[in-house]
Amino acid sequence: MITLYHCVNARSFRVLWTLEELGLPCELQVLPFPPRVHRKDYKALNPIGTIPLFLDGPVRMTESVAICQYLVSRYGPSDLEVGSAEPDFGAYLNWLHFGEATLTFPQTLVLRYSRLEPEARRHPQVVEDYTRWFLARLRAVDAAVADRACLCAGRFTIADIAVGYALLLASDLGLGEHFSAGIQDYWQGLQARDPFQRALERQRQAAQEQGVSPEPIPLAAS
Amino acid sequence: MITLYHCVNARSFRVLWTLEELGLPCELQVLPFPPRVHRKDYKALNPIGTIPLFLDGPVRMTESVAICQYLVSRYGPSDLEVGSAEPDFGAYLNWLHFGEATLTFPQTLVLRYSRLEPEARRHPQVVEDYTRWFLARLRAVDAAVADRACLCAGRFTIADIAVGYALLLASDLGLGEHFSAGIQDYWQGLQARDPFQRALERQRQAAQEQGVSPEPIPLAAS
Repeated sequence: MITLYHCVNARSFRVLWTLEELGLPCELQVLPFPPRVHRKDYKALNPIGTIPLFLDGPVRMTESVAICQYLVSRYGPSDLEVGSAEPDFGAYLNWLHFGEATLTFPQTLVLRYSRLEPEARRHPQVVEDYTRWFLARLRAVDAAVADRACLCAGRFTIADIAVGYALLLASDLGLGEHFSAGIQDYWQGLQARDPFQRALERQRQAAQEQGVSPEPIPLAAS
Repeated sequence: MITLYHCVNARSFRVLWTLEELGLPCELQVLPFPPRVHRKDYKALNPIGTIPLFLDGPVRMTESVAICQYLVSRYGPSDLEVGSAEPDFGAYLNWLHFGEATLTFPQTLVLRYSRLEPEARRHPQVVEDYTRWFLARLRAVDAAVADRACLCAGRFTIADIAVGYALLLASDLGLGEHFSAGIQDYWQGLQARDPFQRALERQRQAAQEQGVSPEPIPLAAS
């Protein structure tokens, strides 16, 4: 049985979304954010304190996009994966990494130095630097979805989940107002998917049952 | 023919190292750092201005770890890749993402706000925050290599290249003094590999031939 440790709208949402796309069950453990502060015993499970933590028998993983890759491969074959013989294999791998390293990490700087840190440790300049950084890199998504509903291979894949989560986080951070019309359309298309909506509902119900606030407080930054 | 746009000891070093491990030729274009400042025409090739840019016929990629994954799969089979049927497949994918998103990106903050930015825009607190962040996450590597020469699957793979590059960057940034004895041993073992040494020599020669400083000025941060 798969177990997923999750915070509302944190990176682990990618995993929850992929599980819903695949129709796979999981035990969902929702933690208050950040868990290393509010659930100190979590460090016994994941010494580096980050979310997600994913367990599948002996398999233990902490990187959200890697978990999505694992799921579509181990529980496939699935159209969510792009195979190495397909022409868009390179583009697919590129979007998987781009979604996290290039589009999500800079937003954690915005989150940290505008909201999470106490007033005296906030840095408006760093917030501005990495807002600009994120928006500049987002232009690559803009170009990719100008004439397409999905990023690669002519179909919805976990590349769209990797990047789509960066758009979810940006919306939560108030950066959605900077989205181009093309990105707005793309993002609305992603949100309209049944598995996306089921993942939202699943986290809401689990948070309620487990006594955790259902408000999105996105991801650990320190 | 593969073409790789590269800066000395930037993330593109992962690709160069993987090419040497596979024995694949490439045209190596070395650019002064950061290229968006010193080679403004580079933006015509890569609009987001980042290094690496990798071209292989119609394939065009910009994320270093994704390129390594592409290479071992398209030009394999290779022991550098861990297959989906192997027990360590999940751990392998996890290290690939961990090496970049969790271990390399935080160091770009250290680089940017301690060296690249003009004096008035430097932030010692951010430098300290992300030095601590990096060192805390590095403990996961420490635990993994305590009794092993490689991260997973009982052999050298591109997971070691993904993480090894983070150690190279840390050394360039002066963070190597914080490495545990276990990480020092692991890092020395990686550097002792012939393909690693050939990649170093290759970038040195190409930089010299192309009139670029061979000094490591690691990676674009803004």
